[in-house]
Amino acid sequence: MATTDTGRVEAFSDGVFAIAITLLILEIKVPQGHGAAELWRALGAQWPSYFAYAVSFLVIGVIWVNHHTLFVHLARVDRTLVFVNLLLLMLVSALPFPTALVAQNLRNGSAANVAAAVYGGVMVGHAVLFSLFWNHATRTGHCFDARVDIAAARAARWRFEVGMVVYPLTVGLAFLSAPAALAVHGLLAVYYAFNQVKVPTLP
Amino acid sequence: MATTDTGRVEAFSDGVFAIAITLLILEIKVPQGHGAAELWRALGAQWPSYFAYAVSFLVIGVIWVNHHTLFVHLARVDRTLVFVNLLLLMLVSALPFPTALVAQNLRNGSAANVAAAVYGGVMVGHAVLFSLFWNHATRTGHCFDARVDIAAARAARWRFEVGMVVYPLTVGLAFLSAPAALAVHGLLAVYYAFNQVKVPTLP
Amino acid sequence: MATTDTGRVEAFSDGVFAIAITLLILEIKVPQGHGAAELWRALGAQWPSYFAYAVSFLVIGVIWVNHHTLFVHLARVDRTLVFVNLLLLMLVSALPFPTALVAQNLRNGSAANVAAAVYGGVMVGHAVLFSLFWNHATRTGHCFDARVDIAAARAARWRFEVGMVVYPLTVGLAFLSAPAALAVHGLLAVYYAFNQVKVPTLP
Amino acid sequence: MATTDTGRVEAFSDGVFAIAITLLILEIKVPQGHGAAELWRALGAQWPSYFAYAVSFLVIGVIWVNHHTLFVHLARVDRTLVFVNLLLLMLVSALPFPTALVAQNLRNGSAANVAAAVYGGVMVGHAVLFSLFWNHATRTGHCFDARVDIAAARAARWRFEVGMVVYPLTVGLAFLSAPAALAVHGLLAVYYAFNQVKVPTLP
Repeated sequence: MATTDTGRVEAFSDGVFAIAITLLILEIKVPQGHGAAELWRALGAQWPSYFAYAVSFLVIGVIWVNHHTLFVHLARVDRTLVFVNLLLLMLVSALPFPTALVAQNLRNGSAANVAAAVYGGVMVGHAVLFSLFWNHATRTGHCFDARVDIAAARAARWRFEVGMVVYPLTVGLAFLSAPAALAVHGLLAVYYAFNQVKVPTLP
Repeated sequence: MATTDTGRVEAFSDGVFAIAITLLILEIKVPQGHGAAELWRALGAQWPSYFAYAVSFLVIGVIWVNHHTLFVHLARVDRTLVFVNLLLLMLVSALPFPTALVAQNLRNGSAANVAAAVYGGVMVGHAVLFSLFWNHATRTGHCFDARVDIAAARAARWRFEVGMVVYPLTVGLAFLSAPAALAVHGLLAVYYAFNQVKVPTLP
Repeated sequence: MATTDTGRVEAFSDGVFAIAITLLILEIKVPQGHGAAELWRALGAQWPSYFAYAVSFLVIGVIWVNHHTLFVHLARVDRTLVFVNLLLLMLVSALPFPTALVAQNLRNGSAANVAAAVYGGVMVGHAVLFSLFWNHATRTGHCFDARVDIAAARAARWRFEVGMVVYPLTVGLAFLSAPAALAVHGLLAVYYAFNQVKVPTLP
Repeated sequence: MATTDTGRVEAFSDGVFAIAITLLILEIKVPQGHGAAELWRALGAQWPSYFAYAVSFLVIGVIWVNHHTLFVHLARVDRTLVFVNLLLLMLVSALPFPTALVAQNLRNGSAANVAAAVYGGVMVGHAVLFSLFWNHATRTGHCFDARVDIAAARAARWRFEVGMVVYPLTVGLAFLSAPAALAVHGLLAVYYAFNQVKVPTLP
């Protein structure tokens, strides 16, 4: 059988999203202090960890929402979609790594720029894979359910491709200011939370 | 579409709760000893870790129960609710951090008070977000299912707002006695386990 | 409402079981060696970790199977059952700790006995909570579904109580031989895998 | 009851797969650098970790797909299948360990061969357990649903047994070249992603 039902792929993907988002906290080191002043100072010095945690939590949360919106409109998946989805999950699961990389290097001079650029690079990977996913799904349209307006869906490819322009810019920005690049990732997540990907449907 | 079905948001949230509660154990260090006496001593010295584990397990377990009770009465979620829920999950996922912070600093003099105050602060955040969630849900009531008595639900806002009074008190208590503050979080969880949030329904 | 539907409690519990069982691997340290001989030696020296991993995996797997068998026969849960179940999950989630404790102390002379006794103590806790769960469920029987033979279920309490005799014996055995005690936990799991708890049903 | 419904076993298994695949990232150490050059160098030196992460992600992802394909055709499971499945999950959950072992020893001379051989050995274990699972399921066929062509399913045993020839070869290859052995595991996963196990069905 060339295609399968989406239910299990979606449930598995949701599990990976939920786990990846919850593992983020493990990357924050737990400081110890011999007294109140020392512990406050140690907690304060870790602000990059809290910042990176909040940004990546929003990023994964919003990728999950958009992933879900796409799958709602698929009636079945073929092997290419399963494989592209697996690569997408590989990058989602990887996010705790660039998150911790940024958190632990944000105050290390020029190392901060490298860390933020790696973070941006992982996000470029997400944009590329989402675009591949959408391009394949809209090529023949045989995986969509009957409600979807396939011609309009194909015409909406640019909405996914725009990510392949925006995310490389965050890599560039990382070399100017690492905290600014991280903040932009957070703002993009908030933006997408309220302006979700829309799959065009027939009237 | 301005609203979506609650099923997936709830399943995702449940996943995050289950993972966060299970990750708590990873924060307890595994002691080694060269003989029985040394290992007993090392195990005994870790009582703050066992105490903090038990309290946070009850806290997350009971937040889960209450979160579930709210969602049972929602027929749909709008974007604001999805976003507030995501912030709520961000704090739930974060709980292993203040838990370990308290566990590792409870015997460090005044650092214990700081750690317990941070723990209390995270719980204040929970109270604020639950209250925001309920206020938004009851404002128009368009997300509730038909059984819910919306006027009564709106009148019950104070039940959520009471948390915004009680939890700041635990922050104050943390500066008097860190173990007492932690014990109060555990007792509040047991209290809420048997006196759950109730969503008023029509007769 | 004094009782709720079991679906969500069961799904949440299953999540906790799946996570706890999968986290076990994180407690095994990854050895490094400068050459083949050194790495073989380091891998071999870790046999207590592999042994403890396999035993605890079977133990959690089989507790999951039995937990599931009980829930299949419940039509609803009251607050006491929810609370006892939460305490049970607290012990299940905690199992990676005694597992690592045994693994890391099994070759430390008399510390091994302490570690195995702690492991046994956690299993005594499981037996006590399963017994409490069953005693409460069979007291009035109002949570069971209609198929269950409540009188026979009440008469079967001893099957759960037997655990409160057997598991304390593993604590005693731990002081004679820690590896033997661990092996007995593994054998009990295999035994229960093939001789599961049975809930008596009406003809 | 000698057999049970597959739903819960499958959901539990899926949870374990999703968690094991997502935990892989925790085994990659987060490098710190005092400047850009140092951090680039540290990131580059970790290529074995990225390589091992990608291979194991594909491996677990594809085992999940095949596991799912088998379960789709089972209408029920008996205790032997539950037990063999539990052993299979034990090996799936264990994969983060050989993955990290390879990652951390790939540049340690002959230790790399040992690590890759251990990885291959765990994969041999998977092949053996999948073969046991299939042999037991096809022996009487009483667990399959009505669509399955049991005689053809029995005749297809060799397709599972072929793994017991191929995977030992990767153990041998590990002693010639550890990176080549790892690459072969990745290629086999990609191969199986597009040429999945097929369960013969009746016309």
